Amino acid sequence: MRQSHLFTKTRKTAPKDEVAKNAQLLIRAGFIHKEMAGVYSYLPLGLRVVEKIKQIVREEMNAIASQELIMTALQKKELWERTDRWSDEVVDVWFKSELKAGGEVGFGWSHEEPIGEMMKNFITSYRDLPISVYQFQTKLRNELRAKSGIMRGREFVMKDMYSFAADEKSHLAYYESAKPAYMNVFKRLGIGDDTYITFAAGGAFTKFSHEFQTVCETGEDVTYIDRKKKIAINEEVLNDETLSNLGLKHDDLEKVSTAEVGNIFNFGQQKAEDLGLLAKDKDGKDTPVWMGSYGIGITRLMGVLVEKFSDDKGIVWPKSVSPFAVHLVSIAAGNSDIEKEADRVYDLLRENNIEVLYDDRDVRAGEKFADSDLIGISTRLVVSEKTISAGGYELADRATGKAKFVSESSLLNELRK
Amino acid sequence: MRQSHLFTKTRKTAPKDEVAKNAQLLIRAGFIHKEMAGVYSYLPLGLRVVEKIKQIVREEMNAIASQELIMTALQKKELWERTDRWSDEVVDVWFKSELKAGGEVGFGWSHEEPIGEMMKNFITSYRDLPISVYQFQTKLRNELRAKSGIMRGREFVMKDMYSFAADEKSHLAYYESAKPAYMNVFKRLGIGDDTYITFAAGGAFTKFSHEFQTVCETGEDVTYIDRKKKIAINEEVLNDETLSNLGLKHDDLEKVSTAEVGNIFNFGQQKAEDLGLLAKDKDGKDTPVWMGSYGIGITRLMGVLVEKFSDDKGIVWPKSVSPFAVHLVSIAAGNSDIEKEADRVYDLLRENNIEVLYDDRDVRAGEKFADSDLIGISTRLVVSEKTISAGGYELADRATGKAKFVSESSLLNELRK
Repeated sequence: MRQSHLFTKTRKTAPKDEVAKNAQLLIRAGFIHKEMAGVYSYLPLGLRVVEKIKQIVREEMNAIASQELIMTALQKKELWERTDRWSDEVVDVWFKSELKAGGEVGFGWSHEEPIGEMMKNFITSYRDLPISVYQFQTKLRNELRAKSGIMRGREFVMKDMYSFAADEKSHLAYYESAKPAYMNVFKRLGIGDDTYITFAAGGAFTKFSHEFQTVCETGEDVTYIDRKKKIAINEEVLNDETLSNLGLKHDDLEKVSTAEVGNIFNFGQQKAEDLGLLAKDKDGKDTPVWMGSYGIGITRLMGVLVEKFSDDKGIVWPKSVSPFAVHLVSIAAGNSDIEKEADRVYDLLRENNIEVLYDDRDVRAGEKFADSDLIGISTRLVVSEKTISAGGYELADRATGKAKFVSESSLLNELRK
Repeated sequence: MRQSHLFTKTRKTAPKDEVAKNAQLLIRAGFIHKEMAGVYSYLPLGLRVVEKIKQIVREEMNAIASQELIMTALQKKELWERTDRWSDEVVDVWFKSELKAGGEVGFGWSHEEPIGEMMKNFITSYRDLPISVYQFQTKLRNELRAKSGIMRGREFVMKDMYSFAADEKSHLAYYESAKPAYMNVFKRLGIGDDTYITFAAGGAFTKFSHEFQTVCETGEDVTYIDRKKKIAINEEVLNDETLSNLGLKHDDLEKVSTAEVGNIFNFGQQKAEDLGLLAKDKDGKDTPVWMGSYGIGITRLMGVLVEKFSDDKGIVWPKSVSPFAVHLVSIAAGNSDIEKEADRVYDLLRENNIEVLYDDRDVRAGEKFADSDLIGISTRLVVSEKTISAGGYELADRATGKAKFVSESSLLNELRK
């Protein structure tokens, strides 16, 4: 894409009421627009990053045999009353509204109940199981406070997955398979080493749930991590019994700020029992289905990446989710030969399916470099009089700042590395 | 995908309260699930169709230089008050709710106001223009009645696009360019011949807006079409002046039921004036921006396709949006050689990037064929004892019902036709 065509522009300052670094940088670089506190639109650059994160998550969820669908924002009051979660005193983040046709509706802050209810149409016997489904859904949560940018929003994108099993053994096997799948996601996003499977409070039927906490200065959670054993404990379950169960010592734990990027939760049979989701077992007896739920905060992850991967010049996207693979910057200063060569390189990259943002604007070199640093595309390719006279281009890595000369003939190979 | 793994199942009947053919068939075939009247979830097969329709629309909007973004469901009251469209007496489809933090919010039934407001951050001069942006957004509309299945929902997916121009000439040029782009979409969906650019009521500043109406027995609109001239008039503007303006004769018009699959609307400068969206012109004078809006109902289109392309056996998807390219059906009846050969064909298609649903279930042939007809994948490939002993397979077209034998060696070429 030609940058002269991109409608967004970088700006020197973020809105005054925006205190979170992630939102400040993303707004300044033109990735997002703030509609109101905790509510952000995703502009062309931002949408590209969201879609790349989603695609990585999609591949890993498909790899554990989950099937993608999409539920609805509008939800039935009657359904949530059945599990005693309609009341504002029980769930304090509901948005609710009146139907013109009569009655109240809720807006999806979670989809456990509707998915479980829907599954009654497809699950009648143990033979129908196991099943796992997931969606990328816009969740609406009426948060009292929202000041962490896209790390905690009133409207945000979440991947939520639900598993259904006929017996405890296959249920737990699936639950366990989600852990490496989740860690694959975080590794591919460049935060694998800093993300800890964290023991947190379970429900009535399991001792623990498992969170995926990423070490992050501005994270809202406090987590106790054992760096060597690569395991962590949420404050709420930090006690002698937990430590002894997990074979951890208090002295080996480090108290750090973290952001919860994912969580997995074992419902046992309780949720299905509440909903009346039953499957006949091998003896023909109706049995509540074993359920688990598995979340990953897609837009929160994007915020965490910006918090962790940025410097005083701007964002530093990991290659895997960089909005474009290459930022092609022409320093032509009115020299039409350089412009033509930059155009030619632009066409060459596109012909070779290399995603490229091409800064073809007629502005000073300093402004181009500053914008390029702010936007943070992982690789920068400079075409200038100096590089052309040497028979090639300058290739620079946004993360390390290291630049090197590449000849015309080796360009494509270098970019494919 | 193996059909034994797909969690949805076909069913003999639709819910009793479902009167629309499109929803009846889509529910029976496992494409959608009804959450409440006018509110449907999209299951794996349905989501595939939605994504294919979106991709066709995306390609055509990108081709007229529009840039994709995604706005938010939550919208500010203050913004809509400014254009006098917050009141329920003016706009009767609002869902509204209270923010826990204080104040009211609306849920996006349209995005004209928020997009125009956002653009103030990016448009200051005629040099920033023209701009066109679009999104695929879940719209929420508090409709009093919803009985047309996915053709009119309380929650549905729409592509909405907005154009911004510095002067009338470039504004109208863009507006005109949208018409062939829209017709390309409808052609690719197989409804080009039945879709008419239709003159409808304009606003205060334009005589007409333009609707794209598809002839469809169960459509909610009444349209007067001139089949020869391929032009149509909405009832609301059918009068002598319009006929004379358009060079049409009353006697050449045929009154038909249609479904509105798209519309384009010229705001002139009024919307920008109301919002205060100004650009400096060449003389440095602040001038309201010329705006247009351009909608395509994505999920409605899916409903229209089912209404138009179905028979007494089920859905007949056009190739361009068929959930899979091929429905591979093995009729093995316990013969493991046939099973192995079907498995081999399944692997072959996947290796060649041909999307395939593989009915590997252990059920009767009659049930497989009935399900295949109901689901409506455009091409069916049968592997049975009979076809194998003849050295190949049976290839059938869902639309025409015609079947032919294809040899093993010609299979891939036939499927790529």
